[in-house]
Amino acid sequence: MPQHAALMFANDTFYVAFSSGDYKTMESVWAQSDQLTCTHPGWDTLIGREEVMDSWSSIMENVESVEISCSHANGYVLGDVGYVLCYEKTNGVVLAATNVFVLEDGVWKIVHHQSGPAPGMFDEDEDENDPLERMQ
Amino acid sequence: MPQHAALMFANDTFYVAFSSGDYKTMESVWAQSDQLTCTHPGWDTLIGREEVMDSWSSIMENVESVEISCSHANGYVLGDVGYVLCYEKTNGVVLAATNVFVLEDGVWKIVHHQSGPAPGMFDEDEDENDPLERMQ
Repeated sequence: MPQHAALMFANDTFYVAFSSGDYKTMESVWAQSDQLTCTHPGWDTLIGREEVMDSWSSIMENVESVEISCSHANGYVLGDVGYVLCYEKTNGVVLAATNVFVLEDGVWKIVHHQSGPAPGMFDEDEDENDPLERMQ
Repeated sequence: MPQHAALMFANDTFYVAFSSGDYKTMESVWAQSDQLTCTHPGWDTLIGREEVMDSWSSIMENVESVEISCSHANGYVLGDVGYVLCYEKTNGVVLAATNVFVLEDGVWKIVHHQSGPAPGMFDEDEDENDPLERMQ
């Protein structure tokens, strides 16, 4: 698979894991490195694998599934590092996200995630960029 | 200069340019690549050098200087790509930021910036990580 497509697939997997409450997959899409960071909307930035994964565990165990989807994703591959910018739709709120990935044993793994409020920039009916829609 | 220090210096330069309303320096800290992206707080993500630089020109020409400083910056160098996570203090508001850099002719240049609301996580008197304070 070309690296750009693999990067977008890894980004899609992150949102599918999140939306389906699949912590095991969520844990596997993050790099094994301890150099992980995560800025959830309105949170302070979390630093370190344990702190980041604890936050996901806490978020995902409190709800059976989260209504979240990813749209308008643009990915950029810069050698062994890639990043994807996209919008997240969750509970009628739109967030802008930056997801940074590294190649770990040839597989794109997340090392940093930030999302924060964005204006609602897309049509509710327009879902062709939604990974959940594409995977059905 | 070690690459990590050079990365942090580039990040500091971004905030010094921003706070002093120095558009020429701001323009020079962004990469020449057209693959630039920028998510200002509450804006849709801007894509492309022209769109990104137009936004900075517009922001910086409307005010003589912006009261903004960077604190608690952590930088990560991954070969020719680096990113810095930090907090921005501006007009009593605290924002969390992700700044992605690439080495362009041996110099770290920004290719992506996102900032969005964060809780006020630091003491107002604690400025030792403020690049403006360090440079005085």
